[in-house]
Amino acid sequence: DSHLFWQSRELFVLTYGALVAQLCKDYEKDEDVNTCLDRMGYGIGVRLIDDFLARSAVKKCRSYSETADMIAQVAFKMYLGVTPSVSCSSAAGNQFSLILDKNPLVDFVEELPAERASLCYCNLLCGVIRGALEMVHLAAEVTFLQDKLRGDAVTEIGITFLRKAEDRKHKRN
Amino acid sequence: DSHLFWQSRELFVLTYGALVAQLCKDYEKDEDVNTCLDRMGYGIGVRLIDDFLARSAVKKCRSYSETADMIAQVAFKMYLGVTPSVSCSSAAGNQFSLILDKNPLVDFVEELPAERASLCYCNLLCGVIRGALEMVHLAAEVTFLQDKLRGDAVTEIGITFLRKAEDRKHKRN
Repeated sequence: DSHLFWQSRELFVLTYGALVAQLCKDYEKDEDVNTCLDRMGYGIGVRLIDDFLARSAVKKCRSYSETADMIAQVAFKMYLGVTPSVSCSSAAGNQFSLILDKNPLVDFVEELPAERASLCYCNLLCGVIRGALEMVHLAAEVTFLQDKLRGDAVTEIGITFLRKAEDRKHKRN
Repeated sequence: DSHLFWQSRELFVLTYGALVAQLCKDYEKDEDVNTCLDRMGYGIGVRLIDDFLARSAVKKCRSYSETADMIAQVAFKMYLGVTPSVSCSSAAGNQFSLILDKNPLVDFVEELPAERASLCYCNLLCGVIRGALEMVHLAAEVTFLQDKLRGDAVTEIGITFLRKAEDRKHKRN
């Protein structure tokens, strides 16, 4: 059955490619495509979180670190079939990197065309993470820091958890 | 692991929804959205067939009927996790219906908006089937005959295999 799981991904990956291609037709600037993918992803994350919580039956995370591990080890595994490695990249403990050795979403992409050098092909994923986190009351910035498709050594998604308004208020008081 | 397989579909289904929504933004007429989805699906089918043949290790089909069964029982199961029932709908033996009791692609769709009454929401699938069949030298017309989303009792995809040029030539000779 894990064989089945693996196979099922190809239609998704090709459909995602069709979506990106359509947006490249719609928008001339890479930045606009990136923004659009992120916004779409956000809308998906907002809806996907219920499915994730219901199916994964995970417990409430008690730290940013636990949350980052949950995204990598449960969510990525569940929806993309891969498990990125996680590293904390700030002394404050609110910045994390997900490193993807293998990114299934680009399985059918050879390389980006020269005129699309700034395209974040998988930017939908950043929006999905951001939207899902927001639904569990965690504000975060999520962006691609490195991308093999753009010639980097690895693909790296950066998650920066933003202090909650209440946290800041407590600090001030 | 079949649990994993099931779960992985949600991100795909929501991403497909984002694609359809984008096309609805791009094209005013439902017919244009339908055509675009079919054309995108065709491009996907043309690429997906290699993956399908490699992973499924199926043998060459010896009849249209076997081919229709293969699409329903192996391909749909593999990529969408459901198995439509198949019925032959012509005396000539070249028309088939795939009946979907459950269509995972519409899991998150309540109903079509009133102004999108002619939208074939899942038309990508028709294109995928058409493209994949063409790559194994089978010409076919593939369309939605019924759609629960549009108020029909079931969702039905019609496949009409078109006689090959050589067949016709043989007949004439």
